[in-house]
Amino acid sequence: MALVDAARPVRRPDGRQPADLALVRRNNLALVLRHLRDAGPRSRATVAVETGLNRGTVSSLVSELIDRGLVREGDVQREGSVGRPGQTVELDGRTIGGIGVEINVDYVTAIVLDLSNTPVFEHRVALDVQALPPEAVLDAVTELSIMALAVCDKRDIMAVGMTLAIPALVEREDGVVAFAPNLHWTQVNAVDGLRHRLGRPGFAIRVENDANLAALGEFAMGCRAGTAHLVYLTGETGVGGGVMVDGQLLRGAEGFSGEIGHMPLNPGGDLCGCGRRGCWETMVGLAALLRMAATPDDPVRDPSLDLEQRLAVVRDRADEGEPRTLDALKLVGEALGLGASILLNVFNPRVLVLGGYFASLGGYLLAPMLAELRARVMAPEACEVVLSTLGFTAAARGGAHVALEAVLDDPTLAPLRHPTR
Amino acid sequence: MALVDAARPVRRPDGRQPADLALVRRNNLALVLRHLRDAGPRSRATVAVETGLNRGTVSSLVSELIDRGLVREGDVQREGSVGRPGQTVELDGRTIGGIGVEINVDYVTAIVLDLSNTPVFEHRVALDVQALPPEAVLDAVTELSIMALAVCDKRDIMAVGMTLAIPALVEREDGVVAFAPNLHWTQVNAVDGLRHRLGRPGFAIRVENDANLAALGEFAMGCRAGTAHLVYLTGETGVGGGVMVDGQLLRGAEGFSGEIGHMPLNPGGDLCGCGRRGCWETMVGLAALLRMAATPDDPVRDPSLDLEQRLAVVRDRADEGEPRTLDALKLVGEALGLGASILLNVFNPRVLVLGGYFASLGGYLLAPMLAELRARVMAPEACEVVLSTLGFTAAARGGAHVALEAVLDDPTLAPLRHPTR
Repeated sequence: MALVDAARPVRRPDGRQPADLALVRRNNLALVLRHLRDAGPRSRATVAVETGLNRGTVSSLVSELIDRGLVREGDVQREGSVGRPGQTVELDGRTIGGIGVEINVDYVTAIVLDLSNTPVFEHRVALDVQALPPEAVLDAVTELSIMALAVCDKRDIMAVGMTLAIPALVEREDGVVAFAPNLHWTQVNAVDGLRHRLGRPGFAIRVENDANLAALGEFAMGCRAGTAHLVYLTGETGVGGGVMVDGQLLRGAEGFSGEIGHMPLNPGGDLCGCGRRGCWETMVGLAALLRMAATPDDPVRDPSLDLEQRLAVVRDRADEGEPRTLDALKLVGEALGLGASILLNVFNPRVLVLGGYFASLGGYLLAPMLAELRARVMAPEACEVVLSTLGFTAAARGGAHVALEAVLDDPTLAPLRHPTR
Repeated sequence: MALVDAARPVRRPDGRQPADLALVRRNNLALVLRHLRDAGPRSRATVAVETGLNRGTVSSLVSELIDRGLVREGDVQREGSVGRPGQTVELDGRTIGGIGVEINVDYVTAIVLDLSNTPVFEHRVALDVQALPPEAVLDAVTELSIMALAVCDKRDIMAVGMTLAIPALVEREDGVVAFAPNLHWTQVNAVDGLRHRLGRPGFAIRVENDANLAALGEFAMGCRAGTAHLVYLTGETGVGGGVMVDGQLLRGAEGFSGEIGHMPLNPGGDLCGCGRRGCWETMVGLAALLRMAATPDDPVRDPSLDLEQRLAVVRDRADEGEPRTLDALKLVGEALGLGASILLNVFNPRVLVLGGYFASLGGYLLAPMLAELRARVMAPEACEVVLSTLGFTAAARGGAHVALEAVLDDPTLAPLRHPTR
């Protein structure tokens, strides 16, 4: 080993490294931006007090964030105990976009959120993903992505990245979908495939499990946003779970956590897509509900029709008191409670958010589910069960939100738009 | 509101608070002590580089830690790339003790660990806890604690605190055992009861779920210590779980996480102590094993005999090829894999540690268990299954470890013993 390593920063006599001023500035920009997003509109003076940065530094940082279109002037602050009332500043970011794309069994969805998580584009395409080769699905995703990017370009929005949400075990570092049983995908290099098709070198593309992203979406912008201990459960063809523990997404040792669809709750029960019998998915997945609720030739069981429309038909029948539909919903609600009791006992969350079709039909599923939970959970009063207000877009929204994190980590990614200083 | 608040620290013009020098010193003492515990013996110069503190400060901090008996001089460092070889320093703490006490269905255990987690006292008393009122159990715990404290006094060890490990939902803040189904305890104020009996005002007493403490014990001193994603499963009368996520104990919103014994895996199965049928505990709890392995009058089913001796008899019979014993162990092993598959799919841990009787009889349980896991876990190769080397002391050790954290947070709790400076 060389005695002097030129690449190594020189140490000062006190052992600290000389500060990299550009890095300090970037970190401070990020600190102020994140604070304004999380804490809401407030005066520069309040930001200074709350972040520990000095007032002059905050003014300069806010000016730069305004020039980058990430922050804007707000109202005059009327209350607050520190200093005289002042002009507030608040998160802007209407010129920054994050793209989330969800690939699921029978649809592909794209959504663009601006920095304040406001949707600026949303589009869903029905697609029989199981019947298509992965390459064809990636073609469809590319088409959707190009639409999303075109909307961004047209509205002068800089798209900073894209996250694919897939019901799969995902190797995030490599961008590879290791195993997606319900899509029939194994070892699909989704990120490279998409990057190649889009032809935008340097554009950040990630892939992540859909339920994990949906949990992040709920944590960031759902009806119980900010709840540190939150379990998200989604019912679609499969059943997915995503868990926030102390405000952090549970990923596990290799990012494969939250696989809950195959809990063996009914030995000797129905055959599951995984080859075993009695998995939870065979009791509460969409196919189970529809099989119990309708005959094989019933249009609600036709996967070529739009899912939300089919669910609306099921809901209408329940509203009309149709006995077979009501029985099916009761059985699914009970089975939902049976499996969810395990998650509540294991995680002791503050909130359980039901997404996917569990939310669409929640009005009928909740009562039998809650009865099971009360009977089976050690501390049932600790957890509130709510229906997602993000519908089938939770995963795509979570994906867009993750893409936007890049700008919150490094606000200098946003170009200077009005360089007045 | 007053315009000037005298209790509020004066702010400097740059908005920062003037440093509280005693607090800074205490935090730096804690930083160096924790670093020496986690990173092992090393020179003062290396500590300076690794902590970012300057060399003179580190020397002064180490001197104080030595004076407090928390650190000692070690060997001369022969390797290392920074600076000339120097005298190493290392964790000492032989004069500091933390007490862990476990209350379980048929025994009470106390253990004292010094700061390096070395046991200095260990004692178990057989006790039919279910048959006794909580007050009588607390009397027995007090007796054990007084023995432990006497050993500490005799060996000039300062006992810094005590943690009770109980198979229960525990309200940690209040020190109350909310609900311990297998002990038949409800709303027992264990901490106050013990504090009153011990008559040591100011002595820190905590209570925590036993499986949570055992998971902490495994993380701190087990055979896979330091594994950030670790699930601990213990088999005793009940079945308990404790989970480390990213190096932090999963506690959940109210500290009630890890309740896994009542997963409903066998609808229509045996009646559980909780009043429902087919809980996992009825398939893999100690009672289930012994019921399958032996007739009612068999001494291995006599709870008045020592548990480890009874387990040794079961193991001997298995070693001799006794068919009923072998069949029972195979069935329990399979059921263990069935339930553990849920935990592996949900948490995706790096290691699953089996404790309690699962460890004692692991040689026979592992093969059928692993076969189930291979069949049911989405990413089975991600997780290693190991038998605890801490035996039935994992929870008490975790409790002692938690008690010792007080000194790692504030090393000035340890008295100056050799104030040479």
